[in-house]
Amino acid sequence: MFREKIKVFDCTIRDGGLINDHDFSDHFVREVYRALSEAGVDYMEIGYKNSKSLFPDEKFGKWKFCEDDHIKQVIDGIPSKMKLSVMVDVGRVEIKDVKQKKDSPVDMVRVASYVKDIDKAIHLVNQFADKGYETAVNIMAISRALDSEITEALEQLEKESRADVIYIVDSFGSLYQETTEFLVKKARSIIKTKELGIHAHNNQQLGFSNTIEAIIHGVNYLDGTVYGLGRAAGNCPLELLIGFLKNPKYDIRPILDLISKEFVPLREKMEWGYIIPYAITGMLDEHPKAAIELRASHKKENYREFYDSIKGKDLD
Amino acid sequence: MFREKIKVFDCTIRDGGLINDHDFSDHFVREVYRALSEAGVDYMEIGYKNSKSLFPDEKFGKWKFCEDDHIKQVIDGIPSKMKLSVMVDVGRVEIKDVKQKKDSPVDMVRVASYVKDIDKAIHLVNQFADKGYETAVNIMAISRALDSEITEALEQLEKESRADVIYIVDSFGSLYQETTEFLVKKARSIIKTKELGIHAHNNQQLGFSNTIEAIIHGVNYLDGTVYGLGRAAGNCPLELLIGFLKNPKYDIRPILDLISKEFVPLREKMEWGYIIPYAITGMLDEHPKAAIELRASHKKENYREFYDSIKGKDLD
Repeated sequence: MFREKIKVFDCTIRDGGLINDHDFSDHFVREVYRALSEAGVDYMEIGYKNSKSLFPDEKFGKWKFCEDDHIKQVIDGIPSKMKLSVMVDVGRVEIKDVKQKKDSPVDMVRVASYVKDIDKAIHLVNQFADKGYETAVNIMAISRALDSEITEALEQLEKESRADVIYIVDSFGSLYQETTEFLVKKARSIIKTKELGIHAHNNQQLGFSNTIEAIIHGVNYLDGTVYGLGRAAGNCPLELLIGFLKNPKYDIRPILDLISKEFVPLREKMEWGYIIPYAITGMLDEHPKAAIELRASHKKENYREFYDSIKGKDLD
Repeated sequence: MFREKIKVFDCTIRDGGLINDHDFSDHFVREVYRALSEAGVDYMEIGYKNSKSLFPDEKFGKWKFCEDDHIKQVIDGIPSKMKLSVMVDVGRVEIKDVKQKKDSPVDMVRVASYVKDIDKAIHLVNQFADKGYETAVNIMAISRALDSEITEALEQLEKESRADVIYIVDSFGSLYQETTEFLVKKARSIIKTKELGIHAHNNQQLGFSNTIEAIIHGVNYLDGTVYGLGRAAGNCPLELLIGFLKNPKYDIRPILDLISKEFVPLREKMEWGYIIPYAITGMLDEHPKAAIELRASHKKENYREFYDSIKGKDLD
C-alpha cells in the first residue's frame, strides 16, 4: 500500500506512559527517538502537556508535562527529520504553558476529546493553531457515541475547527473491520478539508487490521506504538504497520533492533498486550479500567468471574 | 454475525501438537474436550492420523496417531454433541489404519495438501468419504501458489473430490484482509457444491481479522485454537471468534475457565504467539521454519540480523 500522503505516527511514549505514570528514563526515550528517526517515521508523540497546577509534579514522570527543555535535552545530537507531537486533554492543560511554535521543539499538538466535549476541544485546538502548531482532534471512545452525536461533532470539527487532522479513536478496542469501515466512510463524507487519522487499540488483536481497514478507506494518519506498547492491551504494533506499507522511505530494521534491545526486557517488567481481561472489555465495548484493576489484584487470572461481572453490569 | 451454517472448528490439540510432538497429557486433552463441548463448539480436531510405519511410535505423543481407543478413553464420560476430526497429510497415512466411520469415534477427516499434491489429496479424501466420514481438503500455503495453479486445484476439487469442505490455509500468516477477500471470492466462484473453510495463522496478528473477512465473504467453517495455541505464532484465537459470533449456541465462559486453568500455566512452559521472528516470516511470506530454529538458538532475540538473513534469501 504505497500512498504518498500516508504518515506513520508513533505514540509509544505517550500511550505507554499511561502504564507507568509517564516515567520513562531519558535513555529509553532517546533510544525510541533515535530508532524512529532512522526508520523514517513521520511523527513521534512524546507525551502529554498537562498543567502542573492540576497534577502534582513529584507523582509523575516528566513525559506527563513535556517541558520544552526536557524535550530538547532528550533529542539532543540525534539526526532526525521526524516531527514531534504532544497530546493535551480537554480541561487538563493551561494555554499559557505552551509557547509559540517558533520557540518550541514541538511541531504538533493533538487534543483528545470525548464527543460530548467537542465544543471545548474546538476552542482549545484553535488556540494551538493560532500559536502556529499543526493540530489534530482525537475523538475518543467513538464506539460508545450515538450516530447523531458523531455526525454533529464531525460537522462542527469540519466547520469550526482549524485542526489539520481528525482522528477516530477506538479507545476500547471494540471495533471490527466493518465498524471501522462504517466510521471512516462516515467521517470521510463530512470531513472534506482535513486529513483523517486512526488510533486503534489492540484488545481483540484487531489494532493492525483496523488500521489497514482505515487505510483502505482513505485514512492517512496512522497511529502505532513500538511492539504495541500502550495502556492495557496496547496499540497497533508499529513494526507491523511499517512491514505492511510499501513506501521505501520507511525502514523496519532500526525498530527491530529497538524491540530486541529495549522492549523485550521492558515487557518482563511492565504488562501490556493480548491478555484475556482486556480482550473481554474489548468484546463487550467497555473501558479497560475494570480489567486493569483486576490485573493488579490476586484475582488476575479469574477470567470467567470477570466476564460475568462485566456482563452483569449490562443487566443492572 | 449470526449465520446458522457457521461452524466453529477447534484445532488446539492438532495444531498445538506441532510444538510438542503431539505429546499433550490425557488430562489436558480431556479438559479441552470438556470445555469445548460446554462452549458449544461444533468440531474438535484431536490430532493427526499418521502411519506408525513412517513415524517411530516412541518419539511422538499419541495425538500424532489418534488411535480410536485412545480417543475413546480421553473423551469417556463427558457429555458432548461436538464432532471429532483428525487430520491426515498426503503421503503420511495408511488407509488401512482408518476404520469405517460407523466403527470409529471420529466424525471427520481433513486432508492437508499443497496445491501441487492436489491429485493425491483428491484420491485420498475420496477414500475417506467412501468410509463414511465427513471430509475436507485443506489447501496449505496458498499465499505462495500461482493464481493459475489455485484455479486448477479448485476446479479439480469441485469436480473430482467428494470433500464436504474446501479450506483456504494461510500457513505463513502472510495474508491481509484484501488478499483473504480475493482468495475467498475466487474460491466461492469455483466451489459451488461444497462449503468453504478458513484456517488463519497469526504471525501478523491478523488471524482473527482474516477469519472475520472470510466470514463476511461467505466462509462457514472457521478454524481457531484456544488462546491461539499453535505452531510458531499460532492461530486465530477461538475465544475471540466465539466473542464475535452472535449465535446463542456458543458460550465463551467454559473457554475462559480453560484458559485460566490450563493455558496460562502452559504458556510459561511452551512458546507460541506474537513473537517478532514469526511476524517477520509472516510479513515476508516465508515458512516459519527459520524463525522456529532461531527461537531455539542463542540468537533468539537478534531480530534485525534475522530479518536481513530472510530478506537476503530473496536476492540469492
